Amino acid sequence: MTALIYCPFPDAASAETIGRTLIDERLIACINIGGPVRSIFAWKGAVDEGEEVPCLLKTTARLLERAIARLEVLHPYEAPAITGWHCDAAGAATQAWLDAL
Amino acid sequence: MTALIYCPFPDAASAETIGRTLIDERLIACINIGGPVRSIFAWKGAVDEGEEVPCLLKTTARLLERAIARLEVLHPYEAPAITGWHCDAAGAATQAWLDAL
Amino acid sequence: MTALIYCPFPDAASAETIGRTLIDERLIACINIGGPVRSIFAWKGAVDEGEEVPCLLKTTARLLERAIARLEVLHPYEAPAITGWHCDAAGAATQAWLDAL
Repeated sequence: MTALIYCPFPDAASAETIGRTLIDERLIACINIGGPVRSIFAWKGAVDEGEEVPCLLKTTARLLERAIARLEVLHPYEAPAITGWHCDAAGAATQAWLDAL
Repeated sequence: MTALIYCPFPDAASAETIGRTLIDERLIACINIGGPVRSIFAWKGAVDEGEEVPCLLKTTARLLERAIARLEVLHPYEAPAITGWHCDAAGAATQAWLDAL
Repeated sequence: MTALIYCPFPDAASAETIGRTLIDERLIACINIGGPVRSIFAWKGAVDEGEEVPCLLKTTARLLERAIARLEVLHPYEAPAITGWHCDAAGAATQAWLDAL
């Protein structure tokens, strides 16, 4: 079963560096680094905002928890927002590609 | 368990206003407001298109249905497209942050 | 139950053509075509990169596997990355809209 991770980074450079590390460590097969998003969020009793770079990372259900734990260590934020979910279906080529991780 | 909601808005201003309302009401902890997407969709027997502002909202599985119901009331569209899903895994900091909602 | 599909395309033109085909075939109700993402990925033993157009397609859990199989046939890549997942909750209007597929 495949899985996706969504995580915003402070900038594209940190997303690329950490994405490449996770690919090298075979915890993910791919990172898609998006254009900037504006984030508004509750944090320590106030509402704050900022610009972030949203990323989607592709892995398998088997590696999901390890990939997230490793990403949390590598990420520059004190408290990065990392969520991941199992995908109920995938293309045959996608399944084969991610199963090879 | 954490959860995500995906919902396009007609523009960034309505996304920000409604996102801040949902944060103030403690139904979500964060909204990521993206750059514009082009939408092509089936609607009332025809295929229509338009530009929209895609947003991802972060909450918990416990609040997911309430957050979606409230968002549907606040949203300016007659029939907004709102989908939400449970996330099978999250970073430890993310889990703690969203559990505090 | 509603479902989402995430799939990057090489460009907006192929995304639009294939999205319209899937809408015409009543396998999806909508495609959101995003601004470009930078992709870094493991492929055939190396790490490669490129620019892609990310898309989110809206359908139902019932049609998810058929929509993905058809998208895999239509997609211009040798091995497109297609993942789909069931959504645990949706707005009432969204549910009715997608149930009509």
